[in-house]
Amino acid sequence: MEQVGFIGLGLMGEPMAQNLLKAGFAVTVYNRTPGKAKALVDKGAKLASRPEEVAAPGGIVVTMVADDHALEEVTLGPSGFAERLGKGGVHVCTSTVSPDIARRLSGWYAQRGGHYVAAPVFGRPPAAAAAKLWIVCSGPQAAKQRVQPVLNAMSQGVFDFGEGAGNANVVKVAGNFLICSVIECLSEAFTVGEKNGIDRMAMAKFFSTTNFNCPVYQNYAAGVAEFDPTHVGFLMTLGLKDINLVLDAAEKAAVPMPVASLLRDRLVSAIGKGRGALDWSAISLNVAEDAGLRR
Amino acid sequence: MEQVGFIGLGLMGEPMAQNLLKAGFAVTVYNRTPGKAKALVDKGAKLASRPEEVAAPGGIVVTMVADDHALEEVTLGPSGFAERLGKGGVHVCTSTVSPDIARRLSGWYAQRGGHYVAAPVFGRPPAAAAAKLWIVCSGPQAAKQRVQPVLNAMSQGVFDFGEGAGNANVVKVAGNFLICSVIECLSEAFTVGEKNGIDRMAMAKFFSTTNFNCPVYQNYAAGVAEFDPTHVGFLMTLGLKDINLVLDAAEKAAVPMPVASLLRDRLVSAIGKGRGALDWSAISLNVAEDAGLRR
Amino acid sequence: MEQVGFIGLGLMGEPMAQNLLKAGFAVTVYNRTPGKAKALVDKGAKLASRPEEVAAPGGIVVTMVADDHALEEVTLGPSGFAERLGKGGVHVCTSTVSPDIARRLSGWYAQRGGHYVAAPVFGRPPAAAAAKLWIVCSGPQAAKQRVQPVLNAMSQGVFDFGEGAGNANVVKVAGNFLICSVIECLSEAFTVGEKNGIDRMAMAKFFSTTNFNCPVYQNYAAGVAEFDPTHVGFLMTLGLKDINLVLDAAEKAAVPMPVASLLRDRLVSAIGKGRGALDWSAISLNVAEDAGLRR
Amino acid sequence: MEQVGFIGLGLMGEPMAQNLLKAGFAVTVYNRTPGKAKALVDKGAKLASRPEEVAAPGGIVVTMVADDHALEEVTLGPSGFAERLGKGGVHVCTSTVSPDIARRLSGWYAQRGGHYVAAPVFGRPPAAAAAKLWIVCSGPQAAKQRVQPVLNAMSQGVFDFGEGAGNANVVKVAGNFLICSVIECLSEAFTVGEKNGIDRMAMAKFFSTTNFNCPVYQNYAAGVAEFDPTHVGFLMTLGLKDINLVLDAAEKAAVPMPVASLLRDRLVSAIGKGRGALDWSAISLNVAEDAGLRR
Repeated sequence: MEQVGFIGLGLMGEPMAQNLLKAGFAVTVYNRTPGKAKALVDKGAKLASRPEEVAAPGGIVVTMVADDHALEEVTLGPSGFAERLGKGGVHVCTSTVSPDIARRLSGWYAQRGGHYVAAPVFGRPPAAAAAKLWIVCSGPQAAKQRVQPVLNAMSQGVFDFGEGAGNANVVKVAGNFLICSVIECLSEAFTVGEKNGIDRMAMAKFFSTTNFNCPVYQNYAAGVAEFDPTHVGFLMTLGLKDINLVLDAAEKAAVPMPVASLLRDRLVSAIGKGRGALDWSAISLNVAEDAGLRR
Repeated sequence: MEQVGFIGLGLMGEPMAQNLLKAGFAVTVYNRTPGKAKALVDKGAKLASRPEEVAAPGGIVVTMVADDHALEEVTLGPSGFAERLGKGGVHVCTSTVSPDIARRLSGWYAQRGGHYVAAPVFGRPPAAAAAKLWIVCSGPQAAKQRVQPVLNAMSQGVFDFGEGAGNANVVKVAGNFLICSVIECLSEAFTVGEKNGIDRMAMAKFFSTTNFNCPVYQNYAAGVAEFDPTHVGFLMTLGLKDINLVLDAAEKAAVPMPVASLLRDRLVSAIGKGRGALDWSAISLNVAEDAGLRR
Repeated sequence: MEQVGFIGLGLMGEPMAQNLLKAGFAVTVYNRTPGKAKALVDKGAKLASRPEEVAAPGGIVVTMVADDHALEEVTLGPSGFAERLGKGGVHVCTSTVSPDIARRLSGWYAQRGGHYVAAPVFGRPPAAAAAKLWIVCSGPQAAKQRVQPVLNAMSQGVFDFGEGAGNANVVKVAGNFLICSVIECLSEAFTVGEKNGIDRMAMAKFFSTTNFNCPVYQNYAAGVAEFDPTHVGFLMTLGLKDINLVLDAAEKAAVPMPVASLLRDRLVSAIGKGRGALDWSAISLNVAEDAGLRR
Repeated sequence: MEQVGFIGLGLMGEPMAQNLLKAGFAVTVYNRTPGKAKALVDKGAKLASRPEEVAAPGGIVVTMVADDHALEEVTLGPSGFAERLGKGGVHVCTSTVSPDIARRLSGWYAQRGGHYVAAPVFGRPPAAAAAKLWIVCSGPQAAKQRVQPVLNAMSQGVFDFGEGAGNANVVKVAGNFLICSVIECLSEAFTVGEKNGIDRMAMAKFFSTTNFNCPVYQNYAAGVAEFDPTHVGFLMTLGLKDINLVLDAAEKAAVPMPVASLLRDRLVSAIGKGRGALDWSAISLNVAEDAGLRR
């Protein structure tokens, strides 16, 4: 089995790396806080002390880091791995980052005979642990083929969106836009229901078990109906980051996205009202307040 | 089996009445254009020549007519059935009408010892034919219980939203709002994809088979990706009617619904551009045009 | 001088009728609450006890009533004046009503050899008292010419928008839309200023004395900067009525008006938050709250 | 009279520098394209060959450059003037730049005993030539006082928005937001008028001579009524830059600005339709097209 470098052992990255180990890959891991690597090392992973050490020349490196800035740092920063990965290597980037940085890094690798595969993932930590993520990927055909076993080991399905470096990133941020739109629209629907005397949870149950009986509605309908402040699946501030990513990609392609703009305003408002550290479904509270309901 | 009157034999009403016959009810039907009743009469339905003739005093009448105006007409108009249905009767209204008229008719019946059950349906004609509709209902408990077999005969599930006369209507128009929001949001997502070089149909396939693998997305994703002008499942103008219904209900309850307002503008614009007779998913063409794409 | 009937002696109508008296017209007035006519009668007006009594056959009647419903009532209701005004008469309607009712009444008169002139006014009661209203009018050319002295007596200027019965009404509701948009936009501007540490009133002063030094900004900027709950120039609920009027006219002409839709949501939200009885500039409070500011 | 450095001799900067000369200041100018300095040199200005040469230690430098990037370059770039301006010097920045860069530069100067005064201007080239600009300023009190004669020489009025470095920039971008909102709202108003058979130019004339008789409406109403493709007062792409500036400032302060978001979508759409090189009032064409009108 091939050797794979893995950078970023957060809530998503750690279980993803675990699945690579399980699938038999020889995995070298790096994390800014090395303590997070312990469980992996116990199962046989090698621990690198700097990003560049995870890379074997011509090998494969998977990154799962927070954002464009962190990606740039581990890749091209002072101790970044890209130089060493070098010719014939493949960088598999699974983070939700901008199409821009994907295109830039892709160009950087292309000039050096290396390859960049955008492979952002859909799914929460439990899905990552169960290897039940959905992965969307784009990049050079041969590189995608080579890393297919790596992607398979972490997911229940991989969807190919062509050779364009940023394509998969656009699909990823468009997908997060769709999820956020569901939160907003359910909030509006339940609020008009509530003020007409209808039980919000009954609406949630109806929609998510009939025409909208799919994971996104099943994940969010109950939380939109009755907000649970202790559940933070996806931070409000990260939601704003992602909506900004899709709006930036859209602006560069000269595409107006009016619902995305509206969601951006909603998230900004939620942050303004002190909800930045809550799950992004807390925008349902804003929707209710705009109708004069107290929460 | 109980005798049931049925008014309105359009694309939805006719197969719904068929299912009542199949379930063993004695059905008396009325339609403005009596020719549409032929298949039902062949299978044993009685044909009434005026709305009031479908009603048996204290019996059950199901209506499936176009809108508030038509409902008012067949119910309380010169040859309306409500007077004759009278004390102890139940009017089951399955149309998408305003919560207002539901509340008004409910009050009318209540004063005369009759009952009104709002029971709008979700589903297209094929679902109606297969008795696979979803029905949301509201009204007096005893009346709902009495007509439960009638609703069961036409649907794969009945959801109860309480005693409020207009409750089920609010849920219905909120549901249509949710469906329309899906069309708009998929349109925005696919357009930002297209202008980034991504195949719209690939996006449609990805979303509708993974996190959004439910009927609404499965019904609309492909049509939003590649609009088919020959398919008219739900008219643009009816879409506007329904969004106006939810916005009216929301205004009366002092609930702002910004996405619904945006959808209203989108539908108005589509009609302004000559698309009033197309399926409402043709708003995807407007979204594309706003990004400078030609169709 | 010609005899003129005048119906509707509210905050606007009373001073308008006063100005007709001052200009030398023989004025017969009617108001639902006859007490309001006292000052006019003292100055020589005749008091009618029913709407129809204000009309002389072939004469002129000016109406300034609350809305479509009141207009219909005084015109075509049981004691309405239109029948008596009859052939050759001119009905000058100065209220903010729908283009629809203007077109309908215009057709009614046309069939009987009478005329309808839409002549809604811009300005508050003090402007009405000072004969400083602006009047926009539309209707048959000859009728407009005949009533020109009447309009002149109440205004500082009359603008002609053609023969279409509802034209002037469209201009009027479009104008109120523009005013409301100013309130919203100033609110957004001052709120981004406030949260950046800038004095709202300084912004109000700057804009309304430089590039926006016109009545609308001068009237509203200070009130948007520091809301005064005791000042009610124009009721929130009337604002919603007027925005609904422009949106209805726009929908019928298949024109999307996204800012108008946004204003509608804002007004609905303000009403939902209990501000229906405040001046419509209180939407500035909603804008501030959406940014997390407390008022 | 004090010596003043001036950087940026574009359509705005050149006449502004002329007015400093006229007022008796000793002016040293710099422009990337030195040819543009000829008329100024003819009237006594000194020409510098690099930005730093315009600065006298402890003196005053006025900049009027395109954007954040150009400002950073002439100030802190390899041949930037800030270092030489040094202790006691005042940098007067008249460009429309972000509050962020204002705050950053202000901090840079403060650490070195220098001062930064934000002084963006409202007005077009003819106003600049006539010394009829409006200037909004913010920064340290003493520095503002010292440069008051400089600002006076270029304007018809100076408004002080406090000591916060970015305050004046916030007011400036908020002002451009207000102007753009006027274009959008007039477009909506005239389009509902047009489709009701009303002359757009008559509406433009009415509004801009009555309740909206101020420069912004007077400048834009006619152009919104009948778009003139040969007139480019303010580029669509610059409009988008400025709306993005206000939205960024708003996001950082957690202020939702729904109308600004809508304007952003409108500008993006206009650019998507190939109108990026037109005056930003060309968004009126988009508004008309959304209503099905052909232009």
